[in-house]
Amino acid sequence: MFSCSSETEKISDEPTNSREIAGAGTALPSWNEGSTKQAILDFVEDVTNPQSANYIEPKDRIATFDNDGTLWSEQPVYFQFFFAIDRIKAMATDHPEWKDQQPYKAILENDMPALMEQGMAGLLKVVMTTHAGMTTDEFEKIVSDWVATAKHPTKNRPYTDLIYQPMLELVKYLQQNDFKVFIVSGGGIDFMRPWAEDVYGIPKDRIVGSSIKTEYDYNDGQPIIKRLPEIDLIDDKEGKPIGIHRYIGRKPVFAAGNSDGDLQMLRWTAANSAKSFKLFVHHTDEAREWAYDRDSHIGAFDKGWDEAKEKGWTLVDMKEDWKVIYPYELDSVD
Amino acid sequence: MFSCSSETEKISDEPTNSREIAGAGTALPSWNEGSTKQAILDFVEDVTNPQSANYIEPKDRIATFDNDGTLWSEQPVYFQFFFAIDRIKAMATDHPEWKDQQPYKAILENDMPALMEQGMAGLLKVVMTTHAGMTTDEFEKIVSDWVATAKHPTKNRPYTDLIYQPMLELVKYLQQNDFKVFIVSGGGIDFMRPWAEDVYGIPKDRIVGSSIKTEYDYNDGQPIIKRLPEIDLIDDKEGKPIGIHRYIGRKPVFAAGNSDGDLQMLRWTAANSAKSFKLFVHHTDEAREWAYDRDSHIGAFDKGWDEAKEKGWTLVDMKEDWKVIYPYELDSVD
Repeated sequence: MFSCSSETEKISDEPTNSREIAGAGTALPSWNEGSTKQAILDFVEDVTNPQSANYIEPKDRIATFDNDGTLWSEQPVYFQFFFAIDRIKAMATDHPEWKDQQPYKAILENDMPALMEQGMAGLLKVVMTTHAGMTTDEFEKIVSDWVATAKHPTKNRPYTDLIYQPMLELVKYLQQNDFKVFIVSGGGIDFMRPWAEDVYGIPKDRIVGSSIKTEYDYNDGQPIIKRLPEIDLIDDKEGKPIGIHRYIGRKPVFAAGNSDGDLQMLRWTAANSAKSFKLFVHHTDEAREWAYDRDSHIGAFDKGWDEAKEKGWTLVDMKEDWKVIYPYELDSVD
Repeated sequence: MFSCSSETEKISDEPTNSREIAGAGTALPSWNEGSTKQAILDFVEDVTNPQSANYIEPKDRIATFDNDGTLWSEQPVYFQFFFAIDRIKAMATDHPEWKDQQPYKAILENDMPALMEQGMAGLLKVVMTTHAGMTTDEFEKIVSDWVATAKHPTKNRPYTDLIYQPMLELVKYLQQNDFKVFIVSGGGIDFMRPWAEDVYGIPKDRIVGSSIKTEYDYNDGQPIIKRLPEIDLIDDKEGKPIGIHRYIGRKPVFAAGNSDGDLQMLRWTAANSAKSFKLFVHHTDEAREWAYDRDSHIGAFDKGWDEAKEKGWTLVDMKEDWKVIYPYELDSVD
């Protein structure tokens, strides 16, 4: 019996011997040699070795990755927030009254302090105005169109250029070794699904995120699902184990995050009776990306850092461990 | 590039040519030759043919199967209801007060009419008493233990013997042709996941069903998820397209059901811009299984029947189309 993942591009057309670690030797080319890379390779070699006491069957090889700050950048604010702001501006032509109404006024005047003054209620209004009130098909098109055209304000590149090349390689390496790789993000599930499948090679049905409620309508024979302005799941912090249970149904054996919002996911992974791997990406590269941790307004990494140190979880130092950050830098690397 | 599904047992170790329909010729051996079987084979051959105008890329090959009455039997009542009754009886030793309290009294006295008199509120109480109040890990063990030991009251066999051999072959045939096969059931997601993966060859993360809310608790360093007595998703009727969107993120191209509870799922499938296949299993075999449709108290098949006829969807006549119903009958077939 030969089995592999339909999402996995195999190294060759030959059936792989399960004792050959797929990709070993050539795996993780954008990772510098060192203890971090070696820890990953050692873990995968161990748990895929049927002779090892730590062997994990393919069906139990669940890997979960945070998105913002773990698979792509998240500064100066979550990219989904830029999406919401761009949408408000695009929708404003149909809403002349917004120029005098908060939180819209602040956005239309590019007045971030005034927007922040609106607090959580104001932000929630922005989210619901831009993410609810349309069908699921319509929202998918809105997101796809935005991703295809929008650019990051300081990097001046499409947001999907700002994904981490070393993490792409890690995702692929795990898939090649018959891990099922899922995204488990605080970001919106329906915001990620339209582009993340192609960009990361992770299928839509393995993308887990925050969600709002929906409603089915037969609509005179043209069935639709309407997006409602009501929270369903906040897939962050305690919500991540909840989302993992809901969507996957088993504990991960590999989890990667970058902030305190991922701590519960890593604890849930550590609670697996099988051997598990817990990884935090530490943003240390001010020159090539951003440098931030304990006190950051986005992606604060404080309790997670302490617990990782205490428990010996793996910390990725972006500056030291990664040869390149983004795929577009590959051309300039020998 | 060679790709296949990790859940798929390939016909051989040789890479398949994408123009060879996997399993064709030997596919669906428990299906009698005829228009129903031929319609399935023709559809799969068409949409997996890259030269066809109806070609569907593997990533869009989503197939969704109802469970009760579609993959296994559902008479005289849903098997999950037997689980709940058995649980009440097992739990009663710790609840002496139940012998005087409805709906428990009725169950302990095997008085079904009295139980039905308790109405939906009574049934919901039975469901929540037996499905909530424990951790997810504990519930998984409870279900696994029950499935391993419980027997159907009239067939006198384990419930997992009462799965449909022809549908198992259909699931496998679709998987061999790079369809991702999901269960989308009104039954409980956490009731199905402990056994359905092994029994049907459908992985846990492709099992969608009704759910209750849950809560994460760090529990002094031993993380748990607690099952709460509150409905999350009723994955039936209008809830099926909702569940499909939530868990899968794309419309199916193949859907199979057996009752009016599946009609919305089949409509959602028919709304796919790609060619799609809609199938209803019609319970016509009183001798080998059960015969019921429009007026059944379980699995009523009335509006679905009319719409299938009107729109030319495929109707499986169990008595005529299936050589055997259950896998254990295979031994007696030449």
